[in-house]
Amino acid sequence: MVTEPAFELLEDHAAFGGRQLRIAHSSATLACRMTCSVFLPPGADAGAPVPVLYWLSGLTCTDENFTHKAGAQRLAAELGLALVAPDTSPRGLDTPGADERWDLGTGASFYVTATAAPWAPHWNMHDYVIRELPALLEPAFGLDATRRAVSGHSMGGHGALVLSLRNPGHFASTSAFAPIASPMHCPWGERAFSAYLGSDRTTWRAWDACALMEDGADFGPHPVRVDQGEADGFLVEQLQPERLEAAATARGLALDLHRQAGYDHSYYFVASFIEPHLRQHAEALATAG
Amino acid sequence: MVTEPAFELLEDHAAFGGRQLRIAHSSATLACRMTCSVFLPPGADAGAPVPVLYWLSGLTCTDENFTHKAGAQRLAAELGLALVAPDTSPRGLDTPGADERWDLGTGASFYVTATAAPWAPHWNMHDYVIRELPALLEPAFGLDATRRAVSGHSMGGHGALVLSLRNPGHFASTSAFAPIASPMHCPWGERAFSAYLGSDRTTWRAWDACALMEDGADFGPHPVRVDQGEADGFLVEQLQPERLEAAATARGLALDLHRQAGYDHSYYFVASFIEPHLRQHAEALATAG
Repeated sequence: MVTEPAFELLEDHAAFGGRQLRIAHSSATLACRMTCSVFLPPGADAGAPVPVLYWLSGLTCTDENFTHKAGAQRLAAELGLALVAPDTSPRGLDTPGADERWDLGTGASFYVTATAAPWAPHWNMHDYVIRELPALLEPAFGLDATRRAVSGHSMGGHGALVLSLRNPGHFASTSAFAPIASPMHCPWGERAFSAYLGSDRTTWRAWDACALMEDGADFGPHPVRVDQGEADGFLVEQLQPERLEAAATARGLALDLHRQAGYDHSYYFVASFIEPHLRQHAEALATAG
Repeated sequence: MVTEPAFELLEDHAAFGGRQLRIAHSSATLACRMTCSVFLPPGADAGAPVPVLYWLSGLTCTDENFTHKAGAQRLAAELGLALVAPDTSPRGLDTPGADERWDLGTGASFYVTATAAPWAPHWNMHDYVIRELPALLEPAFGLDATRRAVSGHSMGGHGALVLSLRNPGHFASTSAFAPIASPMHCPWGERAFSAYLGSDRTTWRAWDACALMEDGADFGPHPVRVDQGEADGFLVEQLQPERLEAAATARGLALDLHRQAGYDHSYYFVASFIEPHLRQHAEALATAG
């Protein structure tokens, strides 16, 4: 009996001595077909498990934005780090409003487990990233389940913080680029949480990075690096990094906010500062596991 | 009297301490509106003229492929090198067939001066890259007209070689990624040259890198680096780097062909090997001018 492969290999490119892959699979969690980009550093098939960074992208992105534009593969190859970039939401479903609402439909998710119709049960990117994707990819590519890091951009930067806060020990190292600090307190987040979670704001706290810190969650032993461009057009109304700083400080958590003069919200900003993030993750992962 | 600015600034992003710009302007040479991406390294506005690499992209590309995907800005910032990435063809004209023929219409050009209808007089990317664009950008951004390098990918790799061979002294340093070696001897090139230049093949020699070398042209004092992936699907039928090697060897020209096992035709290949190209250009430009 031949076992069906669990995913289809859409692309396989040599890159920096390693391999840049793109896979597609049928997701049980989301009940749709999903794509995911995976970079394997040189020597990843040699036997020793490879530490891995999960990258969560922002609103309107796919698995390809980080993969094409962040220039992360060069240093990941040098550091021996795999990169996994999932898509940002379920796709191809008939969920009402999904194609009209860029801020909460296709290309959005806030990496929550939605509880309100029509987004539940499909909009469950939390479980997809925390459970289904690692179970699918880690054994297949020899990735080290004891040495995972997480980072992301904007909505995905908040996703990285929340997934780390909600799942102690799952990620050994956490960082973020221009994250939405507190969806409960910004227009993007309020619209999305109202839709995904309903109108009872007390249920929102379990999906808000600042509220999770206030309610006792932490990131584990390693400091969290956050970079934020000061010329980012979303800074004041949507991102509000001062809320993250305040919540971390109140709890004594090591969250290092780097404000970068002149930088905007684009992937040029991510590319410009990906290096210190990857180096910090690699250092933390070297002592994890 | 207020002077009209010669171009419109479409984008201006901080990147690696410098600026990633995208401009649009009305091209007199091509008689259409064109976009162009420009990276300025840190300190480019400090007064000293900045050496500049012109990058020519391949079939179906725009000015953005290299800019988004090659990861060149990091090292260009370190080396103090500006990057200019023009579009690959005229756009938005009513040229018959331009939108149907990806291999010679919109997104194609082979960087020639077309002489046959309907491509003449618009398909004149040679003069656009050699004359109009430098005259527009170099004074505006403080780029050093005595320290120009040129490189490119595929059709644009051949464009880099041909523009360098046809214009002695214009570029101080030349390189290419997976260039079409000899358009006269491959299907893409034969179709394009038939359309742009007509059926008299003797006129084609002035636009074919191998024929130009055979007929006495050279690249100037600095060696030319060429990288070619050995898993490139276009290698045998379209690219044929052995023709470049033979033509250079016959003339005693220093053309260093690096065959890279496992690499394909994508920008992952370009990104993987852009560093040695940029370092070689920067070294050559340091002694030019």
